[in-house]
Amino acid sequence: MPSKESDALRAQFQNMSDRFTADPDMSLTTLRSMMEELGDLASEPENVTYGEVDTDGVRGIWCNPLDASPDHLVFYCHGGGFVGNSAASHRKMAAHLAKAVGARSFVLEYRRAPENPYPAQLEDALAAFAWLRGQGFEAGNIVTAGDSAGGNLAVTLVLALRDRGEQLPAAIIGFSPWVDMEHLGKTLDSNAETDAFVNRGVAESMASMFLGESGSPTDPLANPLHADLTGLPPLIVTAGSAETLQDNAERLAERASAAGVEVDVTVAPDQQHVYPFMAGRAPEADEALAAAAGWARRHLGLA
Amino acid sequence: MPSKESDALRAQFQNMSDRFTADPDMSLTTLRSMMEELGDLASEPENVTYGEVDTDGVRGIWCNPLDASPDHLVFYCHGGGFVGNSAASHRKMAAHLAKAVGARSFVLEYRRAPENPYPAQLEDALAAFAWLRGQGFEAGNIVTAGDSAGGNLAVTLVLALRDRGEQLPAAIIGFSPWVDMEHLGKTLDSNAETDAFVNRGVAESMASMFLGESGSPTDPLANPLHADLTGLPPLIVTAGSAETLQDNAERLAERASAAGVEVDVTVAPDQQHVYPFMAGRAPEADEALAAAAGWARRHLGLA
Repeated sequence: MPSKESDALRAQFQNMSDRFTADPDMSLTTLRSMMEELGDLASEPENVTYGEVDTDGVRGIWCNPLDASPDHLVFYCHGGGFVGNSAASHRKMAAHLAKAVGARSFVLEYRRAPENPYPAQLEDALAAFAWLRGQGFEAGNIVTAGDSAGGNLAVTLVLALRDRGEQLPAAIIGFSPWVDMEHLGKTLDSNAETDAFVNRGVAESMASMFLGESGSPTDPLANPLHADLTGLPPLIVTAGSAETLQDNAERLAERASAAGVEVDVTVAPDQQHVYPFMAGRAPEADEALAAAAGWARRHLGLA
Repeated sequence: MPSKESDALRAQFQNMSDRFTADPDMSLTTLRSMMEELGDLASEPENVTYGEVDTDGVRGIWCNPLDASPDHLVFYCHGGGFVGNSAASHRKMAAHLAKAVGARSFVLEYRRAPENPYPAQLEDALAAFAWLRGQGFEAGNIVTAGDSAGGNLAVTLVLALRDRGEQLPAAIIGFSPWVDMEHLGKTLDSNAETDAFVNRGVAESMASMFLGESGSPTDPLANPLHADLTGLPPLIVTAGSAETLQDNAERLAERASAAGVEVDVTVAPDQQHVYPFMAGRAPEADEALAAAAGWARRHLGLA
């Protein structure tokens, strides 16, 4: 049984689905405004200060837990299908994670689709990562993290760094990563009744905007299920058993494990997509954040 | 000429107006989601931590500047026509103000109309004020503040305290206070061409939801233009000369001055409704916050 508290995420997703059903021609502006509400779910984490970056083409929000190591960093990529959400909507979740890790977090504000399709998001992630390296963060003191589309980006950023021969982060965290741009996962249909928001139509629409006219659903840097994952740092992924994207996490973990990557995968019973949205409110969210943070701390040498 | 930066508020208001025009039957949920976007405009103030209160029927967000006096408080009432917006959408603006004052801020999460019409908002403000007094804050160490509908509440809260014989706060700050529930102000029409969002229809609709079936537009605790303002602490109000509610601020200040209240009123050329929304972004917003904070500091004995 999911906790009563975690049901608020299901209710919010259902509310969003109902509004979308009532207004099938919903404008992109209204859709984004609605998706932004997901950021209201987490509690305000205490003892964290914030700041903004908007320089050299790099934009994002700093989350600075008061007792964080100044040398360690969670590079956070927000979700939202590459189309919606923002650093602002994911600030609190990223700050809860940063507190648990004992590091600062940088929440990347990447350009969004469809105005800026793939690979704009990856380019922005690479630019921000390079800028942060230039600010003095060692690659081995960084973990990349993200939820949904941001979980994809947290992986593909590392793949792109590997392909360029750059030093790699210490670990990767993915909360309900969305990677299957071909929509081949079985849970996309088998969990259609229990997922309160993401369905085949939503996934296809978002992927179409993300890939644009020239992108391919099998490009390994857009769909890491098609990537050679060899050499990836340790990867921890979570998903909920109620969600259509459950097997995105599972298949990514399987492929990573087969490539020799150290992997930890957790499927939380009856939880919805990106259940850490309920950070500070629901026990399942806090457990997922604590487990990811423990994993990160071990690989950062902070444990 | 308004600054280029401050034009972002006009553009956001115009965008909201356009969306409302395109969807005149816009649901309350969509309206609220859209209004919440106003909170994106301010920058993230640095060196402020946050927290939540949800106890004894009192809800709100704490803004804690790192170097703030622990004994002084800005009691902040958010705007949004008593119908929209939230402590979350006004967190950053309240935190900028708190930093400038050198005090903590409590951003009240009051019940909203139309589900909870007047006097639910005043009841919640009174309950929270009493709770904060119980936490040890001296009335004389508190300033009430608010924007638009929250500027109304920042005044009526003090009137209600006075009527009950309670000790009063040290000062009141109103950014574009909305007090005229009869819609008699001349600028409601004379500035209709320049105000990018608030027009007679919006004001009438919000007032109708706020007052509900049993409220009166001349109730002095809903419309302080009808109140005896004698004994009010010093009042500082600002408004923009582009806004339809400009003379709400001016008439409130005139009436307060006539009642012997120490008053400071500023009308900023060509600025829109609640131009401090641009805190940390536009010079006019930061000037208004600095002026209000200086006024508050003087009356709190912090200057």
